[in-house]
Amino acid sequence: MSQLYASLFYQQDVTEIFSDRALVKYMIETEVALAQAQAAVGVIPQSAADIITFATQDAVEKIDFQSLAIATGLAGNIAIPFVKQLTSIVKQVDEEASRYVHWGATSQDILDTACVLQSRDALVIVELLLNQCYQTALQQAQRYRHQVMMGRTWLQQALPITLGHKLARWASAFKRDLDRLQLMKSRVLTAQLGGAVGSLASLQNQGTSVTQAFAKTLNLTHAACTWHGERDRIVEIASVLGLITGNAGKMARDWSLMMQTEVAEVFEPTAQGRGGSSTMPHKRNPVAAASVLAAANRVPALMSSMYQSMVQEHERSLGSWHAEWLALPEIFQLTAGALERTLDVLKGMDVNAENMRANIECTQGLIMAEAVMMALAPHLGRLNAHHVVEAACKKAVAEQKHLKDIMAETAEVTALFDAKQLEAIFKPESYLGNIQDQIDAVLQEAKGEAK
Amino acid sequence: MSQLYASLFYQQDVTEIFSDRALVKYMIETEVALAQAQAAVGVIPQSAADIITFATQDAVEKIDFQSLAIATGLAGNIAIPFVKQLTSIVKQVDEEASRYVHWGATSQDILDTACVLQSRDALVIVELLLNQCYQTALQQAQRYRHQVMMGRTWLQQALPITLGHKLARWASAFKRDLDRLQLMKSRVLTAQLGGAVGSLASLQNQGTSVTQAFAKTLNLTHAACTWHGERDRIVEIASVLGLITGNAGKMARDWSLMMQTEVAEVFEPTAQGRGGSSTMPHKRNPVAAASVLAAANRVPALMSSMYQSMVQEHERSLGSWHAEWLALPEIFQLTAGALERTLDVLKGMDVNAENMRANIECTQGLIMAEAVMMALAPHLGRLNAHHVVEAACKKAVAEQKHLKDIMAETAEVTALFDAKQLEAIFKPESYLGNIQDQIDAVLQEAKGEAK
Amino acid sequence: MSQLYASLFYQQDVTEIFSDRALVKYMIETEVALAQAQAAVGVIPQSAADIITFATQDAVEKIDFQSLAIATGLAGNIAIPFVKQLTSIVKQVDEEASRYVHWGATSQDILDTACVLQSRDALVIVELLLNQCYQTALQQAQRYRHQVMMGRTWLQQALPITLGHKLARWASAFKRDLDRLQLMKSRVLTAQLGGAVGSLASLQNQGTSVTQAFAKTLNLTHAACTWHGERDRIVEIASVLGLITGNAGKMARDWSLMMQTEVAEVFEPTAQGRGGSSTMPHKRNPVAAASVLAAANRVPALMSSMYQSMVQEHERSLGSWHAEWLALPEIFQLTAGALERTLDVLKGMDVNAENMRANIECTQGLIMAEAVMMALAPHLGRLNAHHVVEAACKKAVAEQKHLKDIMAETAEVTALFDAKQLEAIFKPESYLGNIQDQIDAVLQEAKGEAK
Amino acid sequence: MSQLYASLFYQQDVTEIFSDRALVKYMIETEVALAQAQAAVGVIPQSAADIITFATQDAVEKIDFQSLAIATGLAGNIAIPFVKQLTSIVKQVDEEASRYVHWGATSQDILDTACVLQSRDALVIVELLLNQCYQTALQQAQRYRHQVMMGRTWLQQALPITLGHKLARWASAFKRDLDRLQLMKSRVLTAQLGGAVGSLASLQNQGTSVTQAFAKTLNLTHAACTWHGERDRIVEIASVLGLITGNAGKMARDWSLMMQTEVAEVFEPTAQGRGGSSTMPHKRNPVAAASVLAAANRVPALMSSMYQSMVQEHERSLGSWHAEWLALPEIFQLTAGALERTLDVLKGMDVNAENMRANIECTQGLIMAEAVMMALAPHLGRLNAHHVVEAACKKAVAEQKHLKDIMAETAEVTALFDAKQLEAIFKPESYLGNIQDQIDAVLQEAKGEAK
Repeated sequence: MSQLYASLFYQQDVTEIFSDRALVKYMIETEVALAQAQAAVGVIPQSAADIITFATQDAVEKIDFQSLAIATGLAGNIAIPFVKQLTSIVKQVDEEASRYVHWGATSQDILDTACVLQSRDALVIVELLLNQCYQTALQQAQRYRHQVMMGRTWLQQALPITLGHKLARWASAFKRDLDRLQLMKSRVLTAQLGGAVGSLASLQNQGTSVTQAFAKTLNLTHAACTWHGERDRIVEIASVLGLITGNAGKMARDWSLMMQTEVAEVFEPTAQGRGGSSTMPHKRNPVAAASVLAAANRVPALMSSMYQSMVQEHERSLGSWHAEWLALPEIFQLTAGALERTLDVLKGMDVNAENMRANIECTQGLIMAEAVMMALAPHLGRLNAHHVVEAACKKAVAEQKHLKDIMAETAEVTALFDAKQLEAIFKPESYLGNIQDQIDAVLQEAKGEAK
Repeated sequence: MSQLYASLFYQQDVTEIFSDRALVKYMIETEVALAQAQAAVGVIPQSAADIITFATQDAVEKIDFQSLAIATGLAGNIAIPFVKQLTSIVKQVDEEASRYVHWGATSQDILDTACVLQSRDALVIVELLLNQCYQTALQQAQRYRHQVMMGRTWLQQALPITLGHKLARWASAFKRDLDRLQLMKSRVLTAQLGGAVGSLASLQNQGTSVTQAFAKTLNLTHAACTWHGERDRIVEIASVLGLITGNAGKMARDWSLMMQTEVAEVFEPTAQGRGGSSTMPHKRNPVAAASVLAAANRVPALMSSMYQSMVQEHERSLGSWHAEWLALPEIFQLTAGALERTLDVLKGMDVNAENMRANIECTQGLIMAEAVMMALAPHLGRLNAHHVVEAACKKAVAEQKHLKDIMAETAEVTALFDAKQLEAIFKPESYLGNIQDQIDAVLQEAKGEAK
Repeated sequence: MSQLYASLFYQQDVTEIFSDRALVKYMIETEVALAQAQAAVGVIPQSAADIITFATQDAVEKIDFQSLAIATGLAGNIAIPFVKQLTSIVKQVDEEASRYVHWGATSQDILDTACVLQSRDALVIVELLLNQCYQTALQQAQRYRHQVMMGRTWLQQALPITLGHKLARWASAFKRDLDRLQLMKSRVLTAQLGGAVGSLASLQNQGTSVTQAFAKTLNLTHAACTWHGERDRIVEIASVLGLITGNAGKMARDWSLMMQTEVAEVFEPTAQGRGGSSTMPHKRNPVAAASVLAAANRVPALMSSMYQSMVQEHERSLGSWHAEWLALPEIFQLTAGALERTLDVLKGMDVNAENMRANIECTQGLIMAEAVMMALAPHLGRLNAHHVVEAACKKAVAEQKHLKDIMAETAEVTALFDAKQLEAIFKPESYLGNIQDQIDAVLQEAKGEAK
Repeated sequence: MSQLYASLFYQQDVTEIFSDRALVKYMIETEVALAQAQAAVGVIPQSAADIITFATQDAVEKIDFQSLAIATGLAGNIAIPFVKQLTSIVKQVDEEASRYVHWGATSQDILDTACVLQSRDALVIVELLLNQCYQTALQQAQRYRHQVMMGRTWLQQALPITLGHKLARWASAFKRDLDRLQLMKSRVLTAQLGGAVGSLASLQNQGTSVTQAFAKTLNLTHAACTWHGERDRIVEIASVLGLITGNAGKMARDWSLMMQTEVAEVFEPTAQGRGGSSTMPHKRNPVAAASVLAAANRVPALMSSMYQSMVQEHERSLGSWHAEWLALPEIFQLTAGALERTLDVLKGMDVNAENMRANIECTQGLIMAEAVMMALAPHLGRLNAHHVVEAACKKAVAEQKHLKDIMAETAEVTALFDAKQLEAIFKPESYLGNIQDQIDAVLQEAKGEAK
């Protein structure tokens, strides 16, 4: 991945977690936890574990990343050459202790557990961003709960809604994403330790006590059995990130459409160097939307790679496992990037109430036809009301007049309503159904109250 | 989808749920629930609701599916022409009542709610199959808990495991899939009712009580707000099915590899007309695996379509929503099909213990090199033990002899162990680590006990 | 696939080609060609081939599709039970001849060759539709070559273009798609005949002459070697269809955006029952766009399935080959459906020139800022011109006035241009660059002339 | 993308082409070509173009990549801040000339053309690798044309083939990939220059002559019209790379299966630090296969992203265009990486003829049942022959004897063949059909001769 694009598509903290350097740090953490767990159980001497712990404290500074990269190409994974370098680092302190580095483990134990640790830390950031998005969407839903705007279906104006309703729906999506994260964690954040084929054979009868101590040391769940070849946990993490990015993509699509020059209702916040054009002064590029939409194009494809990669062979697979390494970090980075940009826009969204009002008027009252029909129905009967309004609509279109003016010329209508009443019927505010109830329900849900 | 392939890739009950006929039945159920909910709240006359209920009881027989198909092409969705036909069916009984058909609803309300009802019913079958797979895998794990076989990594023989361990790992995957289904249901099985833009404006101040009654009638969750444009629930359903199919695909890959002529350890159950070949009498085609692997290739791609489709415009989208209609039913059908075939194989798997034993021997003892080293290490020191075994392995390969025989000629070894002891060290049963603990943990988990 | 959706997403002729019935017809055609080729070479008696030819003329009527479907589920492919039924049909005429049905072939020979025949026939229709789209786009490009409208980038108004330019670009895309189809055909439309492992061993030394005669009989290319396991030809067909659908999706996105109520520049043609709404008389749903966009969401996902399926095992694969059967027909059907709908829209597109003009004005002249700057530059120098225009733009925005009016108050401008000249500068027609050259180049390309 | 994984999955030269640094160099090359083209036509002074050319010669050294990355995040693409930096670099030499940097162009012109230049250079390397793979496969096909091995279908042993036949089929796939590259180049390697909306309006009537000179300067094709929004060319490049990677994936699947411990027929070449395991001396990990299979999992997913990204809005899109930037470079890098590894394996493949022979024998003659039947058929009639062989096969399986021995006890057989003749019939070499013809056809195709 180009560094140039990182600031456009990614989120810095999560990108850091998935950097080569951080990966090596997580692998060191895993090896240290392994040594300590084995010492606690009596598999290796405590002194060896302590020396390993001590000797690797700043090991990441001593790792030769360039030769690690080259050796990775030959070995087929990072862990094999990494363990060699780490052992050699420990050996410089104590040769005896160095023999206990990576004791009984297989390279996949280290890579899988490091991956789970990366995921755990990255999920903290994703959850934080998600929660900020949720809180902000709730606030904006309250703020704009009465801000009337056009509701649109199939890209056509349909009936009025309020901006607050749109934001409440988005808040509700963030809430569900938060719930998903919560419900997933204990199942997926699980230590991996099984040795070559999952049996930890070289630890003989101490395998189980070591895996328990290992998981405890790392504060991860202890799985009933090894999962080198059963990858549903890893893919589940990605699948929830996929939902989060999809939800963000929906919002970005909306605000980019609302930013269209001809619509001009909601804008991304302005910033120096962001989205302007000197020779096209009217332009205000939806830069954040571009980034989120790119993520929402890309993450689904990466999800397909993740799901495909579940078909792994036997006890430990080749190729499919490798494919995970490339997809999962990107999904994390794109998701966090999409959330960060969405949060920016939610926080600083620039709402043009005037244009919202103007757009409501652009069909000259036609969008209120249903409302008028509903007002006439109790008096004329639904069918008659329908005929009256239908005829009026046709006339309005043909004569390019406002529907209200046509109505004001219609005998059936004037017999029932005076000009002021007609004015009221045509107010979009009066035709918003249960939108306020829905906003309240979303707000209450946030307080943990029953809907 | 070809009918010819349905029996190869799908599961009959789920296919029935997603048939055109069943879809129309679910839509009728939705319209009836809408009418009854509105009557309960007083929006429409109870008599109208009752007539709608009565008149549509066998409406599916009266629907003209061919003209429905043609009108769907013009209208852009099924619901619009369906409501016309349904209204006309009710009208034949009572014109007045027919005016209340589909009152206040939009076509997406009907299609989304029908889709949720289909999903609910299909999930029942998926869960049933999943549970049967789980129970069967548990039984087989117990049955074969001591059946030693080769563990394989990167398609290479590594160290011995037992077939029961493999099956326990699979059982554990089914367990997680069951948990996912459970945790998802209340969030995703949600009624949809919002009218054109989600506001139920034409119901004026009765929207909320109608949506509550509607959800209750259908025994679905009542959502805090409409979700016409926020599709994460639908995609979440698919995402869990994707995990299920991926897990099944992993198993099918394994058993198809174990069925290889050169491996011949586990076979799909035989059946008349299944997988045999008259001119190639030794062949035993993994027909079930082919079907499951095809699903595991296809569902990930469909998942990518689902995730992409989340980017929907405004209050109700065009194109993205449509894409869901094609992907979700197939994901359901392929998942149920994959589970049904996996269950068949789990139940009737034909285990060839003799070949498992023979394959363990095919490296002439090399796969036990680590075990031998571990046996020597306490006596010779780990490093010396390593050198002795390494030299013996090289000699065994060069002379094409069994490693045990080389060992029996090695002074360091004969000084420590007699022939019988050496025999014992080379027994794969003696080098299985904590596999039995893991199997027990999976079995206990099934009983709801702490691991 | 639901029949209800076929009329919405598919194209009838192509759907027919991929029906179960047609598949069986293509398989019969393949078996007949095989028998005739073998008779021609002397492998089987000519009388047997003739009886096979005669006896299978209406065999599709005699095939029991229901039992075929059931047997397919057991056998793992259609061909095995199909050959049984076909043999029995021939046997009713002549037992001796029936022994030569499917002589020396494997089921994949029949399925692959039938698939190539289906593809060939479906490509004829795709090419026809593509060519009609191309010709129509060329005509409309000419018709609207001077129809000025806003050009938009990042969903923002940018500078004027003409509708003809947009259409010429689309025409050019169709042209490239046609070229791709042409260049691909001889490579991909290739007969498959290899027997179990590609060697045609049972035909002994007559394999090559039979495969040549077989290919010739079917008017397909004769491949240098069998391709049971090398699937690039099949995926190449799909890959070109993927490009075609992608191009159509781009157009559908454009016209659906232009159909937005607030933009209202180009509309899908109206038809009875298409896209209207009685209670929302202003709505004009882009039904064709919804269908094309759904295809453009779905085909990329199916392409991912196709590419994944290339990783096939050994001489003939399991699972991956099966996945093709599901994906390729859908890609064909969706592509043809997308083209048919695109053609409809291209032919009948309803252009609102008035709204195009009005939208150009909606920024009150700001979109012409660059044009004004270019007009001033030769007189004031580029830098000065830039400053003058920039200041004027700011003023126009602040005072909500038309940029032309601000310009008319600016001394530097009035010193150079009178009102009429200023008017001319602000005409979008005068700022269209080399758009007419580009349209001409596309039109000339269509005539086979050098650009 | 982790640097650690680059050596495992990528190819160095192609990775270099898509590095940030190289991208900037290609963008500089594009800006210089633009200036020179405009000078040639008289749009800007030749002196300005010359100063731009001179001043930017080592500009890549002066670019501040860190601030470029930050500004990219705000601007939404690299080109905007890049042009600022480049202009400032030129300005340090000559302020007047600096005004002509990027004259009339839009950021997408620069990015698209730079992308085409990157693609052109990367395709050179891909083509080179592909050609080397082709030549090597041809050589190995010749070398092993008589090396008999088992042909396998559905992962089951079927009938014998030769390794040369497998390699000839692979060679044939490389040939088709080379043809695809050739046929695509002139269509896709096309300059992009259109300004904001594709009209080059600011160049007034000189747009066409500038675009022609621009394309000529860069030695790229001149397109009939701009293609900012019609992305089929870019996706076509990717689509051919997808086919190449798919073909390589098929080969990697095959050789990884042949490397299985139980099969052990073909191995990846050995190298220091590659794929070995000290504690599991029998293991020989298919490291190259893991890398190629990971690419073959990942590229299809990225292809789905590419096809999806074709649905771009209006004259220049947001989001979809951005998604290309991430996918195309990876597809290139993974494809080149897969080819490099495949070439290594093709060149250095380690063939174990002994195991090939042993595997042929593992069914004790059953795989020759069809051959025996064909030998008996002329004498006994096909049906009788079938019965005799079928009975013998059953007996062989039941008694665990070699089919040949059973045959030697069968009266019908001994009446026709003596022991030596029977021996000959059971030789797999005698049942290879037209495999040698096919190999010859592939070799002739390579010489450009008619098949």
